[in-house]
Amino acid sequence: MRTQVGIIGAGPAGLLLSHLLHLRGISSVVLEKRSRDYVERRVRAGVLEQGTVDTLVEAGVGERMLREGLPHHGIELRYGGAGHRIAFEKLVPGRAITVYGQQEVVKDLIAARLAAGGDVRFEVEDVAVHGLDSEPFLTFGDERLDCDVIAGCDGFHGVSRPSIPEGVLSVFERDYPFAWLGILARVAPSSDELIYARTERGFALHSMRSPSVSRFYLQVPPDARMEDWPEERIWAELKARLETVPGFSLATGEILESGITPMRSFVVEPMQYGRLYLAGDAAHIVPPTGAKGLNLAVADVRVLTEALAAYFKDGTTDLLDGYSQACLKRVWRAQHFSYWMTTLLHTFDEDDAYARRLQLSYLDYVTSSEAAATTLAENYVGLPF
Amino acid sequence: MRTQVGIIGAGPAGLLLSHLLHLRGISSVVLEKRSRDYVERRVRAGVLEQGTVDTLVEAGVGERMLREGLPHHGIELRYGGAGHRIAFEKLVPGRAITVYGQQEVVKDLIAARLAAGGDVRFEVEDVAVHGLDSEPFLTFGDERLDCDVIAGCDGFHGVSRPSIPEGVLSVFERDYPFAWLGILARVAPSSDELIYARTERGFALHSMRSPSVSRFYLQVPPDARMEDWPEERIWAELKARLETVPGFSLATGEILESGITPMRSFVVEPMQYGRLYLAGDAAHIVPPTGAKGLNLAVADVRVLTEALAAYFKDGTTDLLDGYSQACLKRVWRAQHFSYWMTTLLHTFDEDDAYARRLQLSYLDYVTSSEAAATTLAENYVGLPF
Repeated sequence: MRTQVGIIGAGPAGLLLSHLLHLRGISSVVLEKRSRDYVERRVRAGVLEQGTVDTLVEAGVGERMLREGLPHHGIELRYGGAGHRIAFEKLVPGRAITVYGQQEVVKDLIAARLAAGGDVRFEVEDVAVHGLDSEPFLTFGDERLDCDVIAGCDGFHGVSRPSIPEGVLSVFERDYPFAWLGILARVAPSSDELIYARTERGFALHSMRSPSVSRFYLQVPPDARMEDWPEERIWAELKARLETVPGFSLATGEILESGITPMRSFVVEPMQYGRLYLAGDAAHIVPPTGAKGLNLAVADVRVLTEALAAYFKDGTTDLLDGYSQACLKRVWRAQHFSYWMTTLLHTFDEDDAYARRLQLSYLDYVTSSEAAATTLAENYVGLPF
Repeated sequence: MRTQVGIIGAGPAGLLLSHLLHLRGISSVVLEKRSRDYVERRVRAGVLEQGTVDTLVEAGVGERMLREGLPHHGIELRYGGAGHRIAFEKLVPGRAITVYGQQEVVKDLIAARLAAGGDVRFEVEDVAVHGLDSEPFLTFGDERLDCDVIAGCDGFHGVSRPSIPEGVLSVFERDYPFAWLGILARVAPSSDELIYARTERGFALHSMRSPSVSRFYLQVPPDARMEDWPEERIWAELKARLETVPGFSLATGEILESGITPMRSFVVEPMQYGRLYLAGDAAHIVPPTGAKGLNLAVADVRVLTEALAAYFKDGTTDLLDGYSQACLKRVWRAQHFSYWMTTLLHTFDEDDAYARRLQLSYLDYVTSSEAAATTLAENYVGLPF
């Protein structure tokens, strides 16, 4: 079996890449170890940057997103007993975010690939990468897929990155001394916009997925376990961290899903080796505070698509050779922004009284200076490609 | 002997307070343990915010500053082999800084006080604070100065703050793992504007005091000693950290003064106790990176002057009671900005590769985003009072 681009992973990165390549007349096969049902239900990110929305619309896969997604023109920073709105419509006119679950993007992309006769294979076993220095090919099950190029879109725990010989990649990483406990609940959002709440008890995020489904996160110790967090405790803690301004009451409902996510920053450089190109979480992860993970994957895929288009059309390798460098500037901007949002809003056990005062002073500044609020807004809606 | 306001310390804070009170018809006596010659030669800060300049001009003591001071409409951030200008005239139109040595401000204020018959006493010994809870008075040498109010303007190491009973003040502090080695040199500046240079060897600052006198700083280990830094080493290190862009050559000259300054952040809350009010370094210090120390002292004195004017005119104590709270918002903004500038530009031994990449990404952002550059500019020229 032969294709031009062998893509490992049917998450947003791999599926979007396959779709964009198809639009350029480039063939690909997507190999995914999970089932279609699993990836279409996997709850992950849910905030799309303006540029991500534009990319999906331009690629013809944004129809349902435009219909069902929730455009947001601001977020609230809540601390010290008051809410402060970061008003995108004023600070970054014409740019906004769209709340639309990652799994919905995945559903739309799978539907588009299958409708176009695309080759997306689920539940493939033992995917392995070969011949990166010469004639690349993938093996899975009993099969072999020869390809000109391999795209590693299989996330942080995938096989792509570890296929690169030792010593090639420089690793940059940072662990945070806390995790996020997230729940999905069948309850209408208690606010029209996202609320990022900084309290002495820790951080909380009020988010949503639809008019009837809300998403919440709590900062918890890094070793927290779900069995220590029965439903009543989760709601009580969410109320304690969110019901801190007059008149705000948190509506509760059935918890549909819950889980604990470690908070970690990670980058490898370069994002390529031989004929293998890494995109999205396979190359870099961010703590979810700035909602950058999915959006960064889309940005990588845009760059890789252009580079592959030039390669298959003209045989030029300049763009492919420069792929990593072209991506990393945005990757590091997102790394910094995610770190910045995280440190601005979380409480750190090691923080002394001085550090807490600094944090509150910075929050006062970010919510009162138009320039400072704009730095948050322009990163949050996403800097231009 | 009796006066309305007993002022400890003839630095910029104490002298400006005495002068502003005089303009309001309020009497004061300034007690200074050093000689007039000493305080008029003491080299300290040299960057005046727009609001500080305006304050001195409005108070009638800005004539020489306007003539001899050097207005600057931008600063340069130099890193990664290139210089990036933060253009105040574009980012914060109508606001700028003025380079004018602190000791020149002190000379102008002493001259003004003496010309107006003001009582400024130098080389007074053993100043002590008494009766803060009831009838305040100061003692020095064999004398006693009764007063309605005492202003503690005697700097970080002065007697005012330690006169406040234990347990009253909350202390917030932070030490940095490096110091600044500063020199004053008889040489024309090698650049028209200040250069803040971040290198892998550490931070360096190119500054100036006049068209023929330059001021330089080097980040050094916290335990650095001047005897380990002969002139040749200082110049070699300055060149290594500043001659990093094409065409820039550092002119050298006779070193007139040199010294090592620890980098520290410190705040006490509240800034008052009974009839004692602390202003400037007596209540808070910042690392010099953001050039905020002197400017913050001027801001405190403005607030204290208004409060004392209301007290002596109407007998109202509202403003005096709220003095600390009125000052602390600006104090913490300056604390954060100074920390921010310091961490943006210095190398930290404990920084890992991830932290270094983050720092460079942040510098790229600050020098390329108009909003981010504006946050630097608006803090540097000074937020409005």
